[in-house]
Amino acid sequence: MNEFLWPIRVYYEDTDAAGVVFYANYLKFMERARTEWLRHLGYEQDRLRTEDGLVFVVTRVVLDFQRPARFNDLLSVSVRLSTRGRASLSLYQEVRDARRQDLVYCRGEVKLACIDAGSFRPRAIPPRLIAELADDE
Amino acid sequence: MNEFLWPIRVYYEDTDAAGVVFYANYLKFMERARTEWLRHLGYEQDRLRTEDGLVFVVTRVVLDFQRPARFNDLLSVSVRLSTRGRASLSLYQEVRDARRQDLVYCRGEVKLACIDAGSFRPRAIPPRLIAELADDE
Amino acid sequence: MNEFLWPIRVYYEDTDAAGVVFYANYLKFMERARTEWLRHLGYEQDRLRTEDGLVFVVTRVVLDFQRPARFNDLLSVSVRLSTRGRASLSLYQEVRDARRQDLVYCRGEVKLACIDAGSFRPRAIPPRLIAELADDE
Amino acid sequence: MNEFLWPIRVYYEDTDAAGVVFYANYLKFMERARTEWLRHLGYEQDRLRTEDGLVFVVTRVVLDFQRPARFNDLLSVSVRLSTRGRASLSLYQEVRDARRQDLVYCRGEVKLACIDAGSFRPRAIPPRLIAELADDE
Repeated sequence: MNEFLWPIRVYYEDTDAAGVVFYANYLKFMERARTEWLRHLGYEQDRLRTEDGLVFVVTRVVLDFQRPARFNDLLSVSVRLSTRGRASLSLYQEVRDARRQDLVYCRGEVKLACIDAGSFRPRAIPPRLIAELADDE
Repeated sequence: MNEFLWPIRVYYEDTDAAGVVFYANYLKFMERARTEWLRHLGYEQDRLRTEDGLVFVVTRVVLDFQRPARFNDLLSVSVRLSTRGRASLSLYQEVRDARRQDLVYCRGEVKLACIDAGSFRPRAIPPRLIAELADDE
Repeated sequence: MNEFLWPIRVYYEDTDAAGVVFYANYLKFMERARTEWLRHLGYEQDRLRTEDGLVFVVTRVVLDFQRPARFNDLLSVSVRLSTRGRASLSLYQEVRDARRQDLVYCRGEVKLACIDAGSFRPRAIPPRLIAELADDE
Repeated sequence: MNEFLWPIRVYYEDTDAAGVVFYANYLKFMERARTEWLRHLGYEQDRLRTEDGLVFVVTRVVLDFQRPARFNDLLSVSVRLSTRGRASLSLYQEVRDARRQDLVYCRGEVKLACIDAGSFRPRAIPPRLIAELADDE
């Protein structure tokens, strides 16, 4: 079972007046990692959209905040396939300290639906991607 | 059982290239409503911090995205007390269409912990606030 | 010469680890005020886009940061027409303390171009809006 | 005269409903590049703050938006010292296409003041950094 990791640096833009990463921003970090994971699997989302008319949208999110990350921290964001349906995927993700992977700042489950870019209706995930994901399990 | 409502307008800053509200931003909308709900109950969070040394932090979030809100939509964000502990609260929140309250864009459960602004350790919710919340149930 | 004012509350999402409003967010505050100013003049930007095929885009920004606004501050954002061309507008804007209008946090000049929503090429500002703006001077 | 370059990928979080990078976000891109430029010169801003009690704050910004960057574009953000005072710096920055450096999306001049982290009053830039910047000219 593979795990994909993507490094992310915390900048001022990511923090709030409590001196820590603003919690909603962990969703941004997780999406950056998912985007890079799809790219790593051979999928550019702009092409998926224009060539295949497909968009992945987030339909459900469960986030647990463990400890606060701070300005200038170097993070490592993981992506691991959790469950796979015909038109949806669930991913388990962690935002960790890049130098101490056992130090988890936030962990979450993100459910994505594959939809038609025009009608916003469910569409089957492309077979090629299913195959890649199967290899990834 | 009371429900607090707060109106929010969707601006360009809230949208993404899919033409809809970027999903992470619903967390911002929900926090704005919670801030106004606390203010409505008599609590200014800057004073809670400087005078009582207390901060409410989000420890868990469950979000379900129902349908996409768009640029210029007028939303109504609800806050309702769900469960109440000694040092934590759970709130049920919905982001709705302001003119059609049955149209829900996003709903979620947000768990808040009351912590010490300095040590980040759990602190009991102030009795006055507990009393207000009890009235609110 | 008229001035339009729009109130904005500072939430946690707007601040950074320095304990103040993150400077890039003043651009968001100014845009919210411009959107409400256009609405006040009778222009809904979603309709301008779908019905007239017009979009206003920011082409130049000059911002001077005077003093830091903080979490929970209530601000007042001004909009005043500065110069008006055939396909562009310049607006002078200030972000002030809502209770002390002489206390300016940030001031700026924002240049907008009126462009075609499809081709992104310059388009003349609608005559009705020009008339409204003339009244506004 | 040296130029520092930092690569930045455009994610969904950076775009708006017009399908392009939301203009205020170029300020975030420019700040990420400045942070990495300071790190490259040997300065970690969290240490500058805790050890030297110094913070760099943006006091003035002039931005010209040339053409819109889009979702998934790979950008290259430049940093070049423009003018240097006792307690302030001006930097010239461009946001370009990473593969075609002559394609400029946004360019700007950003003025930074060196201030005391506690009192927010001007402080002289550390001599070591002045020396580094002189080498950089």
